[in-house]
Amino acid sequence: MPYVNIKITKEGATAEQKGELIAGVTELLERVLNKNPATTVVVIDEVETDNWGIAGEQVTHRRKKGM
Amino acid sequence: MPYVNIKITKEGATAEQKGELIAGVTELLERVLNKNPATTVVVIDEVETDNWGIAGEQVTHRRKKGM
Amino acid sequence: MPYVNIKITKEGATAEQKGELIAGVTELLERVLNKNPATTVVVIDEVETDNWGIAGEQVTHRRKKGM
Amino acid sequence: MPYVNIKITKEGATAEQKGELIAGVTELLERVLNKNPATTVVVIDEVETDNWGIAGEQVTHRRKKGM
Amino acid sequence: MPYVNIKITKEGATAEQKGELIAGVTELLERVLNKNPATTVVVIDEVETDNWGIAGEQVTHRRKKGM
Amino acid sequence: MPYVNIKITKEGATAEQKGELIAGVTELLERVLNKNPATTVVVIDEVETDNWGIAGEQVTHRRKKGM
Repeated sequence: MPYVNIKITKEGATAEQKGELIAGVTELLERVLNKNPATTVVVIDEVETDNWGIAGEQVTHRRKKGM
Repeated sequence: MPYVNIKITKEGATAEQKGELIAGVTELLERVLNKNPATTVVVIDEVETDNWGIAGEQVTHRRKKGM
Repeated sequence: MPYVNIKITKEGATAEQKGELIAGVTELLERVLNKNPATTVVVIDEVETDNWGIAGEQVTHRRKKGM
Repeated sequence: MPYVNIKITKEGATAEQKGELIAGVTELLERVLNKNPATTVVVIDEVETDNWGIAGEQVTHRRKKGM
Repeated sequence: MPYVNIKITKEGATAEQKGELIAGVTELLERVLNKNPATTVVVIDEVETDNWGIAGEQVTHRRKKGM
Repeated sequence: MPYVNIKITKEGATAEQKGELIAGVTELLERVLNKNPATTVVVIDEVETDNWGIAGEQVTHRRKKGM
């Protein structure tokens, strides 16, 4: 019954990669805490780089500086 | 002053249905806990089916299998 | 498969009241969007009044002023 | 290392304004709690007005009534 | 820079198990999306079973029924 | 009507400091986006250091290494 929310910047993650994250997190919770995959919910939020800040700066600007 | 976040897959919920959810949750909180509707915030997030996983699988795939 | 998060201040909600909220929200999602109760997850977070602010003020202070 | 999530209605916040929010919150956490800006994450979610409710009503309707 | 929030019921997860979840999710994000572990934030929320509902019922009651 | 969630590690933030964060974020949203303080909700979550990971490690361990 775990609920996992993964927030990443919207920078081209493919459907297959998102599928890998979902499968990987579900397997991890089953292995470590014996949680039932059938009721493990995983939600991925992809956030525009204007809307994500780190070190006080929008990722959009950091990417322009090669960060 | 409650804050309610409802996450559902993005599968065609209409504006009217979302209005019903907002009204229904606000009424429920007022009835059960006497919370003031005027400061009850409800946010609905609609998530792409590629980005929602259950049982280790993306909903996109489950829908193709009629689940 | 919806996920609902209800955040309220920690001011004495009983186990029964929280049960009512869980049942009520699950019923609402089934009625309005035909969502399957078996995989509807509801999580209630109870937050200390020092940690909840509205109008720029902690609820602790507002309660002292009878608000 | 703080994580801050700011949810606002999707009503035209500019990239510059979002940058100001990110910088402002990061500075606030550094000033008040001496948190390291380099690992302070700020995520802004902009929510459609159909999907945001207050006082049991969608913001879309409240805006039509000049609220 | 990903942010991952894992919500589980408060049913005895040890510090070591939580460490495994944190390491496992961070490794998964690095492997699948080449995300930098140094700024990958993972937060685990443990929720009382009275405060977690599935199928319209509190987990406290489901556990009493051996579910 | 904004909703702001600030997650920090549980490492001794005082009631006054949390009050400063609430006032500061509310003022920032009013200044930058002209948001109404009266319906600006701020929730602070304080997370145990065992439950917070960065760089794949629990903060508890990082603190022992002086990080």
